[in-house]
Amino acid sequence: MNSPIAIPAQVRVEATRRNLAAVRAELAKRGVDALVVPRADEYLGEYIPAHNERLRWLSGFTGSAGSVVVTADRAAIFVDGRYTVQVRRQVSAEDFSFHHLLDEPPVPWLAETLPAGSRVLVDPRMFSLDWFDATARRLEASAIELVADTDNPIDRCWDNRPEEQVAEALCLGEEYSGEHSAAKRQRLGEVVGAAGADAALIFAPDSISWLLNLRGRDVPRMPVVLSYAMLAADGSMQVVVDPRRIPDGAQTHVGEGVTFLDPADGEGLLRSFSNTTVMADPATANAWSQQQLRAGGAKLLAAEDPVQLAKACKNPVELAGSREAHRRDAVAVIRFLAWLDVEVDAGRLHDEATLADRLGSLRVEVSGYQEPSFDTISAAAANGAMCHYNHLDNEPALLESGSLYLVDSGGQYIDGTTDITRTVPIGSPSAEMRELFTLVLKGHIALDSMLFPPGTTGTHLDVLARQFLWQSGRDYDHGTGHGVGVFLGVHEGPQRIAKLWNATALKPGMIVSNEPGYYRDGAFGIRCENLVVVSEANDLAHERPMLGFEALTLVPFDRRLIDASALSAAERDWINAYHDRVAREIAPLLSDSETRAWLDAATAEL
Amino acid sequence: MNSPIAIPAQVRVEATRRNLAAVRAELAKRGVDALVVPRADEYLGEYIPAHNERLRWLSGFTGSAGSVVVTADRAAIFVDGRYTVQVRRQVSAEDFSFHHLLDEPPVPWLAETLPAGSRVLVDPRMFSLDWFDATARRLEASAIELVADTDNPIDRCWDNRPEEQVAEALCLGEEYSGEHSAAKRQRLGEVVGAAGADAALIFAPDSISWLLNLRGRDVPRMPVVLSYAMLAADGSMQVVVDPRRIPDGAQTHVGEGVTFLDPADGEGLLRSFSNTTVMADPATANAWSQQQLRAGGAKLLAAEDPVQLAKACKNPVELAGSREAHRRDAVAVIRFLAWLDVEVDAGRLHDEATLADRLGSLRVEVSGYQEPSFDTISAAAANGAMCHYNHLDNEPALLESGSLYLVDSGGQYIDGTTDITRTVPIGSPSAEMRELFTLVLKGHIALDSMLFPPGTTGTHLDVLARQFLWQSGRDYDHGTGHGVGVFLGVHEGPQRIAKLWNATALKPGMIVSNEPGYYRDGAFGIRCENLVVVSEANDLAHERPMLGFEALTLVPFDRRLIDASALSAAERDWINAYHDRVAREIAPLLSDSETRAWLDAATAEL
Repeated sequence: MNSPIAIPAQVRVEATRRNLAAVRAELAKRGVDALVVPRADEYLGEYIPAHNERLRWLSGFTGSAGSVVVTADRAAIFVDGRYTVQVRRQVSAEDFSFHHLLDEPPVPWLAETLPAGSRVLVDPRMFSLDWFDATARRLEASAIELVADTDNPIDRCWDNRPEEQVAEALCLGEEYSGEHSAAKRQRLGEVVGAAGADAALIFAPDSISWLLNLRGRDVPRMPVVLSYAMLAADGSMQVVVDPRRIPDGAQTHVGEGVTFLDPADGEGLLRSFSNTTVMADPATANAWSQQQLRAGGAKLLAAEDPVQLAKACKNPVELAGSREAHRRDAVAVIRFLAWLDVEVDAGRLHDEATLADRLGSLRVEVSGYQEPSFDTISAAAANGAMCHYNHLDNEPALLESGSLYLVDSGGQYIDGTTDITRTVPIGSPSAEMRELFTLVLKGHIALDSMLFPPGTTGTHLDVLARQFLWQSGRDYDHGTGHGVGVFLGVHEGPQRIAKLWNATALKPGMIVSNEPGYYRDGAFGIRCENLVVVSEANDLAHERPMLGFEALTLVPFDRRLIDASALSAAERDWINAYHDRVAREIAPLLSDSETRAWLDAATAEL
Repeated sequence: MNSPIAIPAQVRVEATRRNLAAVRAELAKRGVDALVVPRADEYLGEYIPAHNERLRWLSGFTGSAGSVVVTADRAAIFVDGRYTVQVRRQVSAEDFSFHHLLDEPPVPWLAETLPAGSRVLVDPRMFSLDWFDATARRLEASAIELVADTDNPIDRCWDNRPEEQVAEALCLGEEYSGEHSAAKRQRLGEVVGAAGADAALIFAPDSISWLLNLRGRDVPRMPVVLSYAMLAADGSMQVVVDPRRIPDGAQTHVGEGVTFLDPADGEGLLRSFSNTTVMADPATANAWSQQQLRAGGAKLLAAEDPVQLAKACKNPVELAGSREAHRRDAVAVIRFLAWLDVEVDAGRLHDEATLADRLGSLRVEVSGYQEPSFDTISAAAANGAMCHYNHLDNEPALLESGSLYLVDSGGQYIDGTTDITRTVPIGSPSAEMRELFTLVLKGHIALDSMLFPPGTTGTHLDVLARQFLWQSGRDYDHGTGHGVGVFLGVHEGPQRIAKLWNATALKPGMIVSNEPGYYRDGAFGIRCENLVVVSEANDLAHERPMLGFEALTLVPFDRRLIDASALSAAERDWINAYHDRVAREIAPLLSDSETRAWLDAATAEL
């Protein structure tokens, strides 16, 4: 794990104050009045390498989303509801004003704060084209100019910047990928052609890594090769990537039709598509790349990156690998949960970091393990109520007797990606904790059990996981499920199970999480998360084709938190069948008899 | 009822053939190569007066949606999945080719059929601006010109065209509307101003009728005053309407700030908004009106008609009226169902028309009754499987013993609009019919019972009504719920409960239908429909504000079709509580003891 170790507050404040001053001097030198810094690099993804953590360098804020605006005399940081507490802990109120990213976003703030005639600088590689175009129009209405410059002022000021990690990619064999790169490129090239385009700009590194069956070490938690590419309708592909990332044999591995280009040649590549129609996603690909295409005379066709949907629908080899990876991952999690019970019973109430480290070290023992798929959320008692809690941001808390422990973690394996949350009672849970856990679990079961016709999207199903909480006047403020890759991103699209409308129909082979929760501020958090795969659920008795879910995650839900009297017969049957399956599939993989005994008890009939 | 009596097929074919020939001659005279005729008039609503049924005149098709394209040597009719059977019965295959409106829509068909350089005529009053602009672009890509002409060729050819119905509007007092027109206009004017507009084009007659508290007799089933208007941000309003529709006293009734203009002055009005910003909905208002605004120098701001949302949220007076209207309507429906049982028990298996007429005559006896809110669907056995069945389109069928009878009907009352579907067993229902009815009813109950947080839309809730059918491999191919007005449209927006994404959150006071169904081709149809109103569901035990539904419709569901063993305890409690409420509220309104005895039995505890 390479998460930030908490820096003493005063040191951090002094560092960011120096950084702010340096950036202001740079802005003054260039004759601009403001700079907008997002939490993004040129790939606009969720995970970014340390040397691109510009927002963190400038502000001290470590959250996964946010923006900073710097003017000559003001600095403002904009974060969403998940981070309103954290930002005040990490960022100095003397130097920054705090704003809600959605209620009081940066661009209107700029328009109000700056006088007419001002100039606002952005690095167009760090923003989508949609954002750039909308922002330019909005600022223009206030007579403010949006200036694009890839000579990023922060890069000019950042002393002791971490080295860029440049590792050789791994060639993933067909025993893991299930489909040769040439076949994938052929298939996707046809999609590009059918959409009326000559080529597609692919700016998502996970799309490229999947298309080429390559995996990287460039970004923590996200095994992608940092690169962007042009995919032609004939399946040929030009990939812009640091040559040090391409191992010997990669050219043979990816097959004919792939050309690797040095990053210095990227701009030239983008400008070479004159008189062609190029598909690009203005919502997810950066503004710079599409501005280069336009400048070179390409006609842009706005459309979603077609690789994302293809990648989301796993083939039989990927599904077999995911199932295997989940079985092995279950061994580590079950060993952890069994150990935790022993420790708590013995009165050893460890701190959150010790627990996360123990779980991490058990995963390291699993074959095919590569790294965590995200930073473990190891949250005791009230910390569990913070959905994006990181025990490393502050002093790790100790387990508390009579409360709940929430652990959300996952691993990257050579054959699959896992993500699981379990909630564990520490000592005796209260009746209310059991009641609430059971409401959350009932939602998990309702979603897991549902059959649905083709065409159904995650938004249609989201209510199933919430219904029992809603009936009791409660809810949770996060989505119910996200897509998951195969030895790729633990968060991927295009499908999603959430209130926010998502138009992508769930299709066989898609992996999604099922993770309803309940959070009581200052007290505890509950979440029940399995990964599931969308499968055909055909039955001779059915009039219409139906789809359903198959659980990949195979770890018991804590029986001590289940109020069996609140379950319907069908729900009890579901729990018993699931636990029976966990016992059958995982017990044979457990080598020590104590853990096996724990699993026996944990999966006993309810 | 003024639905079309079935015309013998050969007479219809000859008439439409003559009409086609006349239109072709008119097109040739004007030098255009094709004409597109939608099932719409200038208001683009669902219900249109007889003198505007141009599509029916041209093709013989009586469905509620469709398009015809006429060229010099071809005629094509485009209908959706609801009408694929009906169109073949009503329209001659010798004269027309049949196409699916969505899979094979008219505009690409035109682009493929016509040579470059062709000219396609449309009446721009009959299409939305969005459709017009998109079509012009699409045809231009094939070098075909879209020609707009309000001198409609059909109007030139239509002999014996029905007279336009021009009736004096009714001034609806505040005892029914609950809010004076001046207050409504003030409130909505502020919405227009807040959106940054000087005025709004209001082209939906129901919006205008609601704003002015007027009701009309111009359109069957839809008590609106045909008119369009400009609503200014200060609440003043210029209304274009045939002066014969405006009764004495209307000017006083609507209050200051309303000017009525003759239709001859409509174009001048629209062209008078130079240098102003005008809100208009390009998806629902006709192209002509916005083209006039543009031509007059107005800047168009695309936005939904703001009156629709305001109108959808009923005030306390409207809700009280709706509750009263539903109680009185329940008396008519219950008298009908009681009578039906007597008739069937006596072996009198009536035909669908006799049944619909009986129900209609019972409604006529109800105080405040105006007219049906839509053409009654009175469907015996297999006809119930056709969701838009009209027994008047063909020979009305007889009830069949051992099958189901589906009756979907409603009334317009001075104080409310009703819409109810009940499914009744004729003789002994099969076990399978009871199983399927119970699955549909369980969906109805699940939706009716759900609490949900503010922000929830109908799309989020739709699955609740389908879940039991989905679990058994079944579904139904229509939405689950539509908005309903108060002595206005039985179908209204902007809210809707359906798979298709609807972004309008359900708000207190909105009336929606809850009508899951099941349809077996060639055998029977099942539908359980109540109208419900969105209400606050506050409870001290709730952590968050919640909303829920309150049933307006008060008529028993047929106990003979309920398989009580398939209900949960909560579902059984729901049915018993609902039936208890029906008995308490409606029995006192029943004057004859036989119907009261029937209701006692029909609402007995399950």
